[in-house]
Amino acid sequence: MKLLRRLYPAVLLIFLPALSFTSRFNLFYDSPDSSMSDSLIIRRAFDIALTEGQAYGNLRDLCKNVGHRLSGSPQADMAIQWGFNVLQKVGADTVYKQKIEVPFWKRGENEYVKIKGIAQPLRMITLGGSVATPDSKPLKAEVIEVTSLKEISEMDPSKVKGKIVFYNRPMDARNISTFEAYSGCVDQRYWGAVEAARAGAVGVLVRSMTLLEDDEFPHTGSMGYDPNVKKIPSVALATQDANLLHKQLMLKKKMEVEMLVNAQTLESKPSFNVIAEIRGYEHPEKIIVVGGHLDSWDVGEGAHDDGAGIVHSIEALRILTRLNYRPRHTIRVVLFMNEENGNMGGKSYAKIAAEKKENHIAAIESDRGGFSPRGFSVDGSADHLRLVQSFDKILKPYGLHYFESGHGGVDIGPLKDSANKVNPDLMLMGLIPDSQRYFDFHHCADDVFENVNKRELELGCASMAAMMYLLDRNLN
Amino acid sequence: MKLLRRLYPAVLLIFLPALSFTSRFNLFYDSPDSSMSDSLIIRRAFDIALTEGQAYGNLRDLCKNVGHRLSGSPQADMAIQWGFNVLQKVGADTVYKQKIEVPFWKRGENEYVKIKGIAQPLRMITLGGSVATPDSKPLKAEVIEVTSLKEISEMDPSKVKGKIVFYNRPMDARNISTFEAYSGCVDQRYWGAVEAARAGAVGVLVRSMTLLEDDEFPHTGSMGYDPNVKKIPSVALATQDANLLHKQLMLKKKMEVEMLVNAQTLESKPSFNVIAEIRGYEHPEKIIVVGGHLDSWDVGEGAHDDGAGIVHSIEALRILTRLNYRPRHTIRVVLFMNEENGNMGGKSYAKIAAEKKENHIAAIESDRGGFSPRGFSVDGSADHLRLVQSFDKILKPYGLHYFESGHGGVDIGPLKDSANKVNPDLMLMGLIPDSQRYFDFHHCADDVFENVNKRELELGCASMAAMMYLLDRNLN
Repeated sequence: MKLLRRLYPAVLLIFLPALSFTSRFNLFYDSPDSSMSDSLIIRRAFDIALTEGQAYGNLRDLCKNVGHRLSGSPQADMAIQWGFNVLQKVGADTVYKQKIEVPFWKRGENEYVKIKGIAQPLRMITLGGSVATPDSKPLKAEVIEVTSLKEISEMDPSKVKGKIVFYNRPMDARNISTFEAYSGCVDQRYWGAVEAARAGAVGVLVRSMTLLEDDEFPHTGSMGYDPNVKKIPSVALATQDANLLHKQLMLKKKMEVEMLVNAQTLESKPSFNVIAEIRGYEHPEKIIVVGGHLDSWDVGEGAHDDGAGIVHSIEALRILTRLNYRPRHTIRVVLFMNEENGNMGGKSYAKIAAEKKENHIAAIESDRGGFSPRGFSVDGSADHLRLVQSFDKILKPYGLHYFESGHGGVDIGPLKDSANKVNPDLMLMGLIPDSQRYFDFHHCADDVFENVNKRELELGCASMAAMMYLLDRNLN
Repeated sequence: MKLLRRLYPAVLLIFLPALSFTSRFNLFYDSPDSSMSDSLIIRRAFDIALTEGQAYGNLRDLCKNVGHRLSGSPQADMAIQWGFNVLQKVGADTVYKQKIEVPFWKRGENEYVKIKGIAQPLRMITLGGSVATPDSKPLKAEVIEVTSLKEISEMDPSKVKGKIVFYNRPMDARNISTFEAYSGCVDQRYWGAVEAARAGAVGVLVRSMTLLEDDEFPHTGSMGYDPNVKKIPSVALATQDANLLHKQLMLKKKMEVEMLVNAQTLESKPSFNVIAEIRGYEHPEKIIVVGGHLDSWDVGEGAHDDGAGIVHSIEALRILTRLNYRPRHTIRVVLFMNEENGNMGGKSYAKIAAEKKENHIAAIESDRGGFSPRGFSVDGSADHLRLVQSFDKILKPYGLHYFESGHGGVDIGPLKDSANKVNPDLMLMGLIPDSQRYFDFHHCADDVFENVNKRELELGCASMAAMMYLLDRNLN
């Protein structure tokens, strides 16, 4: 007896792999789909995330050893290999790379914005996709401040012609969801150059998209051009510097600004989405996708945007395999490339899925940061929303309470149209973490690993795993 | 007309005070208590907190210009004056100090813990209330590691006698609420010295109460003695150093530790709670209290614990006066002194209330940090819980979803017994913010202003104001 007790760990070591193998293929095969067993499994998913989680270490590795990773950059290639390697260790049946093509925009060097008469340059960052100043040389012009696209479009063009337009409407702090504040403000960043150029402006400065009123970091992001309107350069200013410029403009009637942008749009490049899959035992032809985007802007470390979503998705799959869960449907993790400036990962994935007539029944995206999870948005039918809301009770102990209609995510968005032909009943979902701090870090040099809290990240992983499990159990 | 328009701002300036005066006393007097007007008022409360909030600035001032403020210290006196001054500006009818007496414990200098043979001392902090090592001289003894009080109580006393006991059970990461993890672990810190001394130990080391597994900061907190058991010194180790000590103990059979503690318990001192009040127009004799505690441990800046609760409470009152809200019941903000090591503020407040036969109908405490608010705990009757849960819909847009039975708070706790004689129907409540990061900062040098997020803090203020408003409208 005493010997047996001493040998017990060894005995366990011998039998565990067998147990693991057996249970992987049998444990859930005939298990009753009672809410009791569901709640035990979900409890176990959270235990795994919180006590033996790998997401935080994975995120550290991605942030510190790869760093930021704009589409087309060498770091983006490293991130693809990183994702492929990590996914090979989580117990998927297959891991592969899906070839796509991505735009390649490259920030210039020594770009700046200066106010005439003030030696210290403003803290700026060129917006993604911006053209250079003419001949990549300094551009000097008078600056005028506005607070909306409408204001420019209604202005006498003679007042805009040859000027640099400064868009300075802040995000509205009254929004409880900071994403709503962002939505209500980002038109300035995205369409500001088009509207200004249409009125004859030569350049654009935009107040950074953040709720920090006195921020030292400029925040970049994508911007658009209209093929029928002249392309002019556009940069973001840190809110601290936008405030300074605003004050100077209040003091002086006329003010000149000098800006240099030498960014380039180069030839498109081959790139990859990274995909891992566990085949379903009951409906292998029906697919549930979870994912985030592997690329980031070319500043900071893309820790919250969207390193968090990447490690959420990988860890959610790992938790299910760690639970020896055998899914009814095929479960796929997709690390999408190029969400930030083109969404070619999402578009290409959807296109290939349509060509292959793949049947996607649900997709969950995490692209709102690694903060304490609050719930999920649902972009689907009334039945879908009801189903997800019926999980309310079982998810309540984990602080998940928000289950409302809403946008799923940029990466999975294109699936909706392309999947229509095979399965118009596709449901898209987005993980909704607490949003208060997201735009403190979004698209700026401060989006680093240190600003992600381990437990908040881990709770997101378990929430994703729980939702994957519940969808797999409950969808046809 | 043109002149009138030019004069408009001046006209406003002239009439606004009058308007403000009138509305303060009439606007809500006859206003219908419809849910429509409630939701508008609560929306306005959040707008004020998020766009013209003073809580963040107040917290900066308290943290940076007063700093930490243990009961009896000069900084605690400064904090009392600070609170008195700030409360005088928020539109209360009366602001006053309530005299109390507080214990005065003083940390020594050059306290340390060293492992024999390792030059670098361990990062330690003496627990609040600890006695010094004998004669305030270094104490050397063999160290033994345990994971519970039970383990020590069941151990052969000959194995404990003359030793230093090292309690090293970590907080259980599986708890979703970190406060539950704390509750399940803090017995080691509070009763560790009593249990160890009973078995003959001479000193205690305790693993810091934090979920950070590799933390550089030691976390202090209160500890208890038993009058019938010898008092021995007790200190906390940073989890990084607790891990180091654990590893060393695995490697070596016997290990000696040297510790020096020269803390002193000095004579009790006079101190104050700070109180501001707006008299109710309908039931001036019935009181609703909101509060937090003004004292903190003597490290860091007491930013989350409980600077946040202090500025939450002050701002909640300011929001109501800013709304020109005239309460039905008397509303009182209490900045309690000495929560951390004696709770003399809470006990004295309750005692004086009982002596005066004051009728307290509700008390809300904020002492769980300045993070995104999730809801409120309710310590009251089933009717009270139902009432609070009926606010669910009106508070949902603000991310408030948690309304469950639970502890109100340490400061307001004593009110329950003493109020019994006047009003046994008293309801206690606690603001429940997201708890994930709380014990990263709790009672350590990292509990500083920089670790409080402005919007998260502001949402807490508005949540407190909303709950005060709803209780005032709905309680008899």
